[in-house]
Amino acid sequence: MDPSAVGTFDLLGTDPHSKARRGRLVTAHGIIETPVFMPVGTQATVKCCSPDELKELGAQIILGNTYHLFVRPGMEVMSHFGGLHQFMAWDGPILTDSGGFQVFSLARLRKVTEEGVHFQNHVDGTPMFLGPRESMQIQATLGSDICMLFDECPPHPCSYDDAAESLDRTLRWAATCKEQPTPGLKFGIVQGSAYADLRRRSAEALVQIGFDGYAVGGVSVGEPEPEMFAAIENAEPYLPASRPRYAMGLGTPPQMLEMVARGIDMFDCVLPTRLARNGTAFTRLGTIALKNAAYTKDRGPIEEGCTCPACRTFTRGYLRHLVKAEEILGLRLITLHNLHFYLNLLGEARRRLEAGIFDGWRRQFVAEYRANRGDPTVEADV
Amino acid sequence: MDPSAVGTFDLLGTDPHSKARRGRLVTAHGIIETPVFMPVGTQATVKCCSPDELKELGAQIILGNTYHLFVRPGMEVMSHFGGLHQFMAWDGPILTDSGGFQVFSLARLRKVTEEGVHFQNHVDGTPMFLGPRESMQIQATLGSDICMLFDECPPHPCSYDDAAESLDRTLRWAATCKEQPTPGLKFGIVQGSAYADLRRRSAEALVQIGFDGYAVGGVSVGEPEPEMFAAIENAEPYLPASRPRYAMGLGTPPQMLEMVARGIDMFDCVLPTRLARNGTAFTRLGTIALKNAAYTKDRGPIEEGCTCPACRTFTRGYLRHLVKAEEILGLRLITLHNLHFYLNLLGEARRRLEAGIFDGWRRQFVAEYRANRGDPTVEADV
Repeated sequence: MDPSAVGTFDLLGTDPHSKARRGRLVTAHGIIETPVFMPVGTQATVKCCSPDELKELGAQIILGNTYHLFVRPGMEVMSHFGGLHQFMAWDGPILTDSGGFQVFSLARLRKVTEEGVHFQNHVDGTPMFLGPRESMQIQATLGSDICMLFDECPPHPCSYDDAAESLDRTLRWAATCKEQPTPGLKFGIVQGSAYADLRRRSAEALVQIGFDGYAVGGVSVGEPEPEMFAAIENAEPYLPASRPRYAMGLGTPPQMLEMVARGIDMFDCVLPTRLARNGTAFTRLGTIALKNAAYTKDRGPIEEGCTCPACRTFTRGYLRHLVKAEEILGLRLITLHNLHFYLNLLGEARRRLEAGIFDGWRRQFVAEYRANRGDPTVEADV
Repeated sequence: MDPSAVGTFDLLGTDPHSKARRGRLVTAHGIIETPVFMPVGTQATVKCCSPDELKELGAQIILGNTYHLFVRPGMEVMSHFGGLHQFMAWDGPILTDSGGFQVFSLARLRKVTEEGVHFQNHVDGTPMFLGPRESMQIQATLGSDICMLFDECPPHPCSYDDAAESLDRTLRWAATCKEQPTPGLKFGIVQGSAYADLRRRSAEALVQIGFDGYAVGGVSVGEPEPEMFAAIENAEPYLPASRPRYAMGLGTPPQMLEMVARGIDMFDCVLPTRLARNGTAFTRLGTIALKNAAYTKDRGPIEEGCTCPACRTFTRGYLRHLVKAEEILGLRLITLHNLHFYLNLLGEARRRLEAGIFDGWRRQFVAEYRANRGDPTVEADV
């Protein structure tokens, strides 16, 4: 890797019929072809998966969670091991969130001040503090390739005044974050809840400060899907085309493709791993619950034609047995299938973009997926 | 595989200083080099492991549990899928137990008759029945390569009269089992509790009926270790050298080597997989609890020089974090290490037997293992 190239984002092509983009982001641990799905490695592991398996699935970059790693094993241990890459033996790019989302959704007894948030962690109740300086220091210690700004993620619903006040603080924190040295890139996070003018103000203010990429936050927090799309549409026009865009914490397969069509390049979501642990598998015709008695004697794979390690070898009937018997191999195999499904879906999106046939394919995929079975409700990534 | 060779047991060599044997058993799904450790696949999966991983670890044969598979998914499903090999996608040899041990240790409301045992299963309380005929039919449906006879496993301690009465019934059941057609080999099970004359009578009566191999059962049921060794020593002289011998459900690494030295060829034990799920790893100097705070910053592998997938890549510090955070990858990696340890230990025993240096090595291994840390208590395989 040429060190001077780190942070470069090449816009390789744009879709003539939508805002979809085919891009390439250079990080210190490797090149990321976009649009891209990033598996979530909350506690220094993508649940159930080894780094080798992630590589075989084609994962280009994974997420780490600042809040979780700050709480356990803690920064002394992370520093001792030389950062998250070495600790978990993943040599590809890592994006870390700021910890803000989890502090507001998971920790207890929060007190928000201008400097940051006092809270008690959810593991043993230890009082802790996280602000923009601390968050960037932690992400620097983790050796993150892409550091997210420390922001406040307002709940849904949120009054205009509360959203505006929260946004102002998040923007002051953004300026503080910008000043902190980190080895990795820094991405700003557009907030503003459901209010179009706040989303625009947030985006313009962040671009004014200047970051390596821009995320849209405060989405997938329980709002209806049209509102989620609106949050993206209200921010995107004010983000520079020359920088990558990331929609945080979503979504279902159709939602991701709709977001790609709205100009988003990067995604993370716990759905493929979380639903797998509940025995739910993704297919092109929607999700299926493998616990269902209908699969007891089913000799087919989860999805015909799928090339994942589960579908290459195992039947729905066997997977149902494993799920019913609460065997870990069942969770593992469905996790591998679901991650393959998500990673492969974005890979297909890239290939269709290169061939100039993205938009028709996207519409057909979404229609087929939604015609058959309902989407699972997107759960927030905590 | 030459079908006429199935069941052949070649005694390739014997140790000049002990009763240890180097052998080779031919089954319909492959050749088994003995002495051998057989990973336990209770519910149609060796817990946490894929068939590919078992192959890579060098597993030659795995166990299936008749009771568990009879209860769930049930024989209609197993028959539909063409047996256990196809169901779980394991194409190597499989040994199945008879279900007797679990009926007596796990099921509820048992009533023993001359025909077998009425019980309520532990999953949903459904009344079920298992006797010598049913057990052999189930093992035939599973397509087992080595079927174990349906026996009664007396508790520890057990009075002489109870043990004798139980043994007589087990011997009548053995004759019934012998008559049932199965595609695989049939192994008799020596019972007789702690009584030397009963063990001898059991062994002689089984040999009189004539089986493809002989197991020693009713061991590792809570008795002191000297009694466990005595049970083997009281049976072994009456078993033909030309057939393989199997000590059921044990044991610790030293116990297995002591059993090899007493003429045993085959072992199964849940310790490597069960202790892994508790965060305990095997080493040549005894077991270590990876939860221990002492490993928090440990940059070494579980065991220096170990070539297992966990030790090749991951530190004790990372594994400790995974165990503390209750991440499945932690259980997986320690399971792989522990199975590697057990499989490799028996592989070493085979190589030392071939080189004629087994006994000194065995004594040194046992001394070093026991000098440092205590053995975990062997738990019965339910």
